[in-house]
Amino acid sequence: MVKLTKLIDNSVLVAPGAKSLLRQRATVADDIFPDREAAEAATKENAKAIDALQDALWAEGERALLVVLQGIDTSGKDGTVRAVFNRCGPLGVNVTPFGRPSEEELAHDFLWRIHMAAPKKGVIGVFNRSHYEDVLVVKVRGLAPADVVEARYAQISAFEKHLHDTGTRVLKFMLNISKDEQKQRLQARLDDPEKNWKFNASDLDDRKLWDEYAKAYENALDRCSTDYAPWRVVPADRKWQRNAIVAAVVRKTLEDMAPVYPKPDWKASDFRIE
Amino acid sequence: MVKLTKLIDNSVLVAPGAKSLLRQRATVADDIFPDREAAEAATKENAKAIDALQDALWAEGERALLVVLQGIDTSGKDGTVRAVFNRCGPLGVNVTPFGRPSEEELAHDFLWRIHMAAPKKGVIGVFNRSHYEDVLVVKVRGLAPADVVEARYAQISAFEKHLHDTGTRVLKFMLNISKDEQKQRLQARLDDPEKNWKFNASDLDDRKLWDEYAKAYENALDRCSTDYAPWRVVPADRKWQRNAIVAAVVRKTLEDMAPVYPKPDWKASDFRIE
Repeated sequence: MVKLTKLIDNSVLVAPGAKSLLRQRATVADDIFPDREAAEAATKENAKAIDALQDALWAEGERALLVVLQGIDTSGKDGTVRAVFNRCGPLGVNVTPFGRPSEEELAHDFLWRIHMAAPKKGVIGVFNRSHYEDVLVVKVRGLAPADVVEARYAQISAFEKHLHDTGTRVLKFMLNISKDEQKQRLQARLDDPEKNWKFNASDLDDRKLWDEYAKAYENALDRCSTDYAPWRVVPADRKWQRNAIVAAVVRKTLEDMAPVYPKPDWKASDFRIE
Repeated sequence: MVKLTKLIDNSVLVAPGAKSLLRQRATVADDIFPDREAAEAATKENAKAIDALQDALWAEGERALLVVLQGIDTSGKDGTVRAVFNRCGPLGVNVTPFGRPSEEELAHDFLWRIHMAAPKKGVIGVFNRSHYEDVLVVKVRGLAPADVVEARYAQISAFEKHLHDTGTRVLKFMLNISKDEQKQRLQARLDDPEKNWKFNASDLDDRKLWDEYAKAYENALDRCSTDYAPWRVVPADRKWQRNAIVAAVVRKTLEDMAPVYPKPDWKASDFRIE
C-alpha cells in the first residue's frame, strides 16, 4: 500500500513549487495499474477501507476531509464519486456540485459559496468543480478582469491553508483526459439514447477552447499546489485506472490522519438499563 | 412486486384518517418477510432499482423525493440509510440529520430549517429525524407551550401538502422497535468497545419516558398521516426486515412517479465533434 501510493505520487503529484507540465502528462496510467481486474479489486478494497476510516473520523468528530474534483466535461467526476464513495454512502459523504453562480452567490466574494459548502467535522466533502472554476472558465471566457483573476491564486491558497489549519485536509484531483477521449465520450452522448440527456451543445464551445483551458489548468496547478493542499493530475482516459488512483490516495490520506474512536469516560457497569 | 407492496402496506401503512394503534403494532414482520436470505436479496435488488430510478429522476429534473425517518434511539435510522441508499450513493441522495436546533434555527419558525433542507429537483432527500421532533421530544419534555404544539399538526400537514403539490413526494417511516430490543441495543453500546462512542447517557433518560414517547408518536401518526404524505410504521426489531420493507416502498414510490429521460430536441447528425 505504501509502496503503491509512492508509485502513484511519483507519477501524479504536482510537487509544490514545481511546474506541473500538464500538457506533457500522460492520460493513461499503465505504469501504475497495468491490469484492469487488479485495479478494480484494489478500488473496491480501498472504498471499503475509506468507509471504515470515515466511520472513525465521524466518531472522533474533530476533523474533516475535502476532496476537490476538477476536469473538463466528460472527464468522469461523477463516475469517480460513485466508484470511490458509494461504499461510504450519503451518511458519510456530501457532494456539492458547483455550477454557474446564482445572483446571490455573485453578490458575495467568490469563496463565499465554497466556504458554505465546506464539510463539517467527521464528514468527507466532495466538490464536483470548485473555486478553481474562478481561475478556469472565468479566465478563459474573460468573465472577470485579468487583475481580479490574477489575485485569486493567492486568495485560494490562503483559503485552503485556513481549511487545513482548522482541521480539514484538502485533496485536489484534476481528472486528465485526452482530446480524443473526450471526442469519443461526447459522441457517445449523441449516439446513445440513454446518454442523450447529458449532452449539452455548449460543451462543444468549451471543446473549441481546449488549448486555452489546458493553459488555464496548467497555471492553476503551477500556482496552487501546496504542502497543505496539493494537486494531483490523474490519468483519466481509463476509468478503472482513474478510480484506482483516487481511491488509493484518499485511503492513504485518511490512514495518515489516523482518526481514533474516542475513549469513553465511563465504565459499562456505571449504567443499568431498566 | 405489486403484490408484495400491497402485502406490506396492508400491514404498515397508517390509513389517512384512521387510528394508528401504534402500541398494538408488531415490531417484527415475519408475515411479510419470513426468510432472511430472501429479504436481503430483495433489499439489494430494490436498492439497485432505486439507483436506476433516481438517475432518471435526475435526468428528468422536475421532481424530488423526501424520505422521513423517525424512531427512538437505536431504532436503526442510519442502518436503514446504508442498506437502502448506499447503492444510489452521495451523488443522488442527501441525508440531513436534525438534532437540537441552533440559536439561529430557534429564532425562526420550526419549519424553517426543515424547508431549507428540502431536496432539490432530481434528488432523494433523507431526513434523519425531522420536523416531527417538534411534536415528539418537544411535547414529551414540555419544551413549548401545549397550544403551540397543538397547532403544529395542522401546520406540518399544510407544509407537507405544499411540498407534495410543488413536486416533492413525501414518504414517512416510523421505525418501530420494542422496549426489549432497545435494551439489547443500548447494552451493546455499553459492552462493545467499537460501539462505546455511540452511547449517550441521556438516551437512558429518554428510555424512562418510553410510554410518553409512544403516546406522542401515536398522536403524530394519527393526525399527520395523509394521502399526500402517509406514515408507515415499520417493524424494526429485525434489521433485515426493516431494510426490506423500506426499500420495497421507496422503489414502488419511484416506479409510480415514473420519471422519464427527457427527449432531445436535436438529432445526433446536427453536430460534428471536431
